[in-house]
Amino acid sequence: MARIAVVGGDGIGPEVTAQAIKVIQAVLPGVETVDYDLGAARYHRTGEVLPDSVRDELAGFDAILLGAVGDPTVPPGVLERGLLLKMRFDFDQYVNLRPSKLWPGVAGPLGAVKSGEIDFVVVREGTEGLYAGAGGVLHRNTPAEIATEESLNTRFGVERVIRDAFARAQRRERRKVTLVHKTNVLTHAGGLWARTFEAVKADFPDVTTEYQHVDAAAMFMVTAPARYDVVVTDNLFGDILTDIAAAVTGGIGLAASGCINPERRFPSMFEPVHGSAPDIAGEGVADPVAAVLSASLLLDHLGHPDAAARVTEAVASELAARTPGAPLRTADVGDRLAAAAAS
Amino acid sequence: MARIAVVGGDGIGPEVTAQAIKVIQAVLPGVETVDYDLGAARYHRTGEVLPDSVRDELAGFDAILLGAVGDPTVPPGVLERGLLLKMRFDFDQYVNLRPSKLWPGVAGPLGAVKSGEIDFVVVREGTEGLYAGAGGVLHRNTPAEIATEESLNTRFGVERVIRDAFARAQRRERRKVTLVHKTNVLTHAGGLWARTFEAVKADFPDVTTEYQHVDAAAMFMVTAPARYDVVVTDNLFGDILTDIAAAVTGGIGLAASGCINPERRFPSMFEPVHGSAPDIAGEGVADPVAAVLSASLLLDHLGHPDAAARVTEAVASELAARTPGAPLRTADVGDRLAAAAAS
Ligand SMILES: CC(C)[C@H](C(=O)O)[C@@H](O)C(=O)O
Ligand SMILES: CC(C)[C@H](C(=O)O)[C@@H](O)C(=O)O
Repeated sequence: MARIAVVGGDGIGPEVTAQAIKVIQAVLPGVETVDYDLGAARYHRTGEVLPDSVRDELAGFDAILLGAVGDPTVPPGVLERGLLLKMRFDFDQYVNLRPSKLWPGVAGPLGAVKSGEIDFVVVREGTEGLYAGAGGVLHRNTPAEIATEESLNTRFGVERVIRDAFARAQRRERRKVTLVHKTNVLTHAGGLWARTFEAVKADFPDVTTEYQHVDAAAMFMVTAPARYDVVVTDNLFGDILTDIAAAVTGGIGLAASGCINPERRFPSMFEPVHGSAPDIAGEGVADPVAAVLSASLLLDHLGHPDAAARVTEAVASELAARTPGAPLRTADVGDRLAAAAAS
Repeated sequence: MARIAVVGGDGIGPEVTAQAIKVIQAVLPGVETVDYDLGAARYHRTGEVLPDSVRDELAGFDAILLGAVGDPTVPPGVLERGLLLKMRFDFDQYVNLRPSKLWPGVAGPLGAVKSGEIDFVVVREGTEGLYAGAGGVLHRNTPAEIATEESLNTRFGVERVIRDAFARAQRRERRKVTLVHKTNVLTHAGGLWARTFEAVKADFPDVTTEYQHVDAAAMFMVTAPARYDVVVTDNLFGDILTDIAAAVTGGIGLAASGCINPERRFPSMFEPVHGSAPDIAGEGVADPVAAVLSASLLLDHLGHPDAAARVTEAVASELAARTPGAPLRTADVGDRLAAAAAS
């Protein structure tokens, strides 16, 4: 039976993950969960973000479900780098998966786009590019100061994520992959991405492809989001594009994500895209839908596509039944979703 | 009297710049213009994009007005790098200025946003960052291939563009500057940008400031674009954000831009953001509004703020009077705008 590490984290994180676990247990009775106390509170108490011993323990789980980490009392970047990015790199989570869907019942900001018209997934590279941390600063705080950031890209790293994107496209109805980069300016890395894309494409003759520069893609995500099916792109471009994707589908409050090691040599990590929302923490009013959708990605990854689909359908019914603006109780939503998914 | 080099370029470029020049001549009679034949046609004829001799001639003008370069027959990147980026670097056009306004009469894609509610300008750095071209490829086309791209940032380059942004904010009503970067991940360059921003801010006590990560900014440009006044950011982030900005204000068809050397040691270059649109070239139906708005930026840069304002007002009236979807004739629009701006 699957073993899941639960990192509730800060603010509303523990509240929403509790509902996600409730739902997972409803569709996969007997699943084992272990709570880990990581995030702002632990950082303040011990000065530690992710001790090596905890990292090594986490490595033994099948998957990690995370709520949200961070609050205004922690210097920016500390938890992001020390926990989220560290897991992505240490657990080789090279597929950063972000589905975007305009759900029935959800009013997106785009006047002309109806629900059902947006349904794509961004496959963002998770272990390379500008996230490598390469770079430096000289002559800090003087007029002569310079700073560099280096994007590191390997054929190995680019090829495996592009293959994953094609494989995902093959399992979808439209079977289309859009490569996004900036080949006209970033000729070195862009060339590697484009060459690798062409090479992989040959192995997936039933998948159609297109290429877009990142600036054009950022525009089309707003003006024509329906055109996308699977988008594959580098780490930083993916970071930006997935937030646009969340915006056009009703906000990060509904967006799920998975940081995935497809071979399952290491645990993958699933989390809602929203933050810890300290302003409403502890009130039991946070919407757990994004956490529950992340749980659905987790179930799919662990080889339970039917359970995953039932969870997604439960969320779809929940959203379709909602009255816009009506208050909700976190636990009630979790109960409803668990009941709907179980049946 | 001002001397302007006109690079009509490809596709609809020459058609729209002709109208922009018509308008400039109406508000600044006696202005001298010289046409330069650069773009796809010249590239095919001579293999050259921007010969040094032409570059040196252009250097003697007060400003350059460009239509659009590129068409499907030229390998991607050749004209962009050989002409547009070369001018930005050779003419030290470090302020890449992109105003975004939802004009009365223009229906943007955001259902809840009314015209007048979006009115901001992005000050994008134009001579540094990932556009430096630094980087390389090893073991091309083998499994061992790696590619790097290096973002180069200097205190000199960052400070001057941030100062420009603050100075622009001071001349606007809301007097607010938003710095956009990704300091939680790009700690080296992000640190330089953040430190420099803090230092410059002290010299502009009447300007309010905020900081946003680029992913959050990309989202807020869609969900809350009214919050921005002046946005300052690096070269690549600016490339992406300005296309989102164009999207939420009715598309790149209306967007103007200037690549500016504020000290006027070199000519600045002004161009509509749209491309050469080869599909409608030569039919006289291209909308010259973005080119005319670029001409307004040119006039402002050359020290004619009143003329610039008259051109902008003429465009505002033109757009407000339009029937959505009604056909237009490029030259008629130019005539109307010239007449309105002259009076
Ligand atoms: C918190 C931050 C490091 C992270 C990223 O940049 O990847 C976040 O924006 C995300 O998209 O998961
Ligand atoms: C054509 C390209 C090189 C250019 C850029 O990336 O700056 C364009 O996208 C722009 O925004 O002016």
